[in-house]
Amino acid sequence: MKPRRSTPLDLPLGFSFSAAAAGMKASGRPDVALAEAWPGTTAAAVFTKNRVVAAPVTVGREFLAKTRGRVRALLVNSGNANCATGGAGIRVCRRVCFELARRLRVRSEEVFPSSTGIIGVPLPARNLVESLSELVAARAPTAGAAARFAEAIMTTDTRPKLASQSFRSPHGRVSLLGIAKGSGMIHPQLGTMLVFLFSDISGTPPQLRALLGSVLDETFHSISVDGDTSTNDTVLLLASGRSGASLDQRGMQNRFRAVLLNVCRSLSEQIVGDGEGAQHRVCLRIEQARNRQEAIEVARAIARSLLVKTAWAGADPNWGRILSAVGAAKPAIDGSRVDILIGDQRVCHRGTYHRFDTAKAHAEMRKPSYEIRLQLGRGRSQAVFLTTDLSIEYVRLNAQYST
Amino acid sequence: MKPRRSTPLDLPLGFSFSAAAAGMKASGRPDVALAEAWPGTTAAAVFTKNRVVAAPVTVGREFLAKTRGRVRALLVNSGNANCATGGAGIRVCRRVCFELARRLRVRSEEVFPSSTGIIGVPLPARNLVESLSELVAARAPTAGAAARFAEAIMTTDTRPKLASQSFRSPHGRVSLLGIAKGSGMIHPQLGTMLVFLFSDISGTPPQLRALLGSVLDETFHSISVDGDTSTNDTVLLLASGRSGASLDQRGMQNRFRAVLLNVCRSLSEQIVGDGEGAQHRVCLRIEQARNRQEAIEVARAIARSLLVKTAWAGADPNWGRILSAVGAAKPAIDGSRVDILIGDQRVCHRGTYHRFDTAKAHAEMRKPSYEIRLQLGRGRSQAVFLTTDLSIEYVRLNAQYST
Repeated sequence: MKPRRSTPLDLPLGFSFSAAAAGMKASGRPDVALAEAWPGTTAAAVFTKNRVVAAPVTVGREFLAKTRGRVRALLVNSGNANCATGGAGIRVCRRVCFELARRLRVRSEEVFPSSTGIIGVPLPARNLVESLSELVAARAPTAGAAARFAEAIMTTDTRPKLASQSFRSPHGRVSLLGIAKGSGMIHPQLGTMLVFLFSDISGTPPQLRALLGSVLDETFHSISVDGDTSTNDTVLLLASGRSGASLDQRGMQNRFRAVLLNVCRSLSEQIVGDGEGAQHRVCLRIEQARNRQEAIEVARAIARSLLVKTAWAGADPNWGRILSAVGAAKPAIDGSRVDILIGDQRVCHRGTYHRFDTAKAHAEMRKPSYEIRLQLGRGRSQAVFLTTDLSIEYVRLNAQYST
Repeated sequence: MKPRRSTPLDLPLGFSFSAAAAGMKASGRPDVALAEAWPGTTAAAVFTKNRVVAAPVTVGREFLAKTRGRVRALLVNSGNANCATGGAGIRVCRRVCFELARRLRVRSEEVFPSSTGIIGVPLPARNLVESLSELVAARAPTAGAAARFAEAIMTTDTRPKLASQSFRSPHGRVSLLGIAKGSGMIHPQLGTMLVFLFSDISGTPPQLRALLGSVLDETFHSISVDGDTSTNDTVLLLASGRSGASLDQRGMQNRFRAVLLNVCRSLSEQIVGDGEGAQHRVCLRIEQARNRQEAIEVARAIARSLLVKTAWAGADPNWGRILSAVGAAKPAIDGSRVDILIGDQRVCHRGTYHRFDTAKAHAEMRKPSYEIRLQLGRGRSQAVFLTTDLSIEYVRLNAQYST
């Protein structure tokens, strides 16, 4: 079953949402979002692997360690990444958390901060603090409020990204709602991607960490838009426990993991589908690799090649560029054993051209979404990787971002 | 002294050049080029590190090994890379070498083949063979013929690339002429870049190899246009010995190396300056690195970031994207010790924003060529790396290449 991507959402119990405009987006659109979690909510988070990290990543990591995985509120702003802002950036982040905590009567460390936007510009603390009362007053445990949260965290995203799914259990109905933002700067090791997963199951932080870790490779680590890894990326999983079901109950870990995988997969697809200026979502299926790691590395090398991505923008079945990218990849792949298929048509056999219907390949590549398969002839492992073409629109968008 | 980039060229003795049209370029422009070398000419070559290599790379490497570094003719075609063409591609390459050798009365193995253009399309042997008589008849030891050679090897290049320099020695005047092609698919480990260096000094193949190896790091390995590494890249150095001077003579290695470095540097600059759709040539100067390798890796990470390159296209002093690229680079750089300068203005100090004149930075970045300096605060090594912005024009060019 596919998770829901719009209302009616499977709304987990134990969370209230709201959004407000604090003036960081030039458009004046909402740019601050709050999610309040009921007492007892547990959390697990995964952060960017970029060595330059934003202030909220530093603070969020520290707070989670202090509370041992307890979160009472999530505060996200868009329009400003609060990154490369030095000690002042850290202080502003703490101050905003403190001000929110005071209004919600929770501890500062129970507020999880998150930011996305331009790097190297001081975060306007005053605007943010002034928006808090509105945020707190407006919070509601409704699908509409969750949708407003999703819109407020957008930057260059063209649409909000939500996915939800639920299942019945003898102990109550369990729901998981995922809200994400991200369209550019997406690459393995997490791009400028914020993913917040709200569930009403009950679980310990270590249980949540293990579950989250087990789905990342197949979802957010297997997508790429532009090869850049951001300074702010965060995936946060919250569990309010309000459903009555618990990860300690029999079979519940597997059932919850299946839903978590579905929701994360849907959000991954939505992020790639909304890749900046992307016209095509390309699914790279790398088969016959010696192991999964090798397959992923080959996929990443292809997804990073500008020549490949621009050929896709022109719906050009120029498979030679794909083969060349494979030859330049880290694993020592023998190009003369590689087969390439576009859709269901073989276009390259054992590293050399294979007669094919170019008009048909061209038509396939004009679809908004299609598959390219590589058979490496080395083993039995495979990986599926989602990426996009590189369009003129991508360059236009990114050449104008801060000016 | 800067090497010459146009006529009058310092033409080395012992080489004749010609060009012809064999119908591989849709435009009908010349696409085959010949350089004949006098008897006794020695050679050294460096090839692409891509594991998928074109037929002429395989054949050229084999021929050089067979002759122990002797070359009597260089045959280059553009418009078709003869890559991913399997056993048939190898046979066609050998056959064309054989046919040229017969006409020049040299051995097949003394012909050095080279190709550039689209991958995965059979090389039209018949057209090529038919063009040989014209090539042989037209060859001439003149600057005009060398310029025609340079034009015939162009693909998406917008201008031919030549550089020459000479120096007096007690044993005669020594000249070096370099001819190159390359504008896209350029990255460290050699992009689709062909570089032919003709000199009239006398030297053994090991001497030539050592000299060539000693200048690559600072020249062709320190440039990047789009991060792709091609299947066909070749740098070939030929020495006819006709000047009377020899690398065995006192001080001659150093003097020749200086000229070789100048000519290779000029060709590198010309290649980056002609980067596909590039509006800006950016010189990255990475300082205070622990060692040169680290500096180069940081430069490459920056030069590969689409977000950085598109910001440059918009002349946008968005230094946060540069810092983010540094944080995602392989060496574990501490972002909080990094300073960034655009032109002579510091825009980032110790990893945080530093008040600067944005209008001035914007003006600097509108120049066709400018410098960005990074100070890593780790050591005393540095590296200089040339790259370009990523423009809409790059995407347009590469989305239309083969269709």
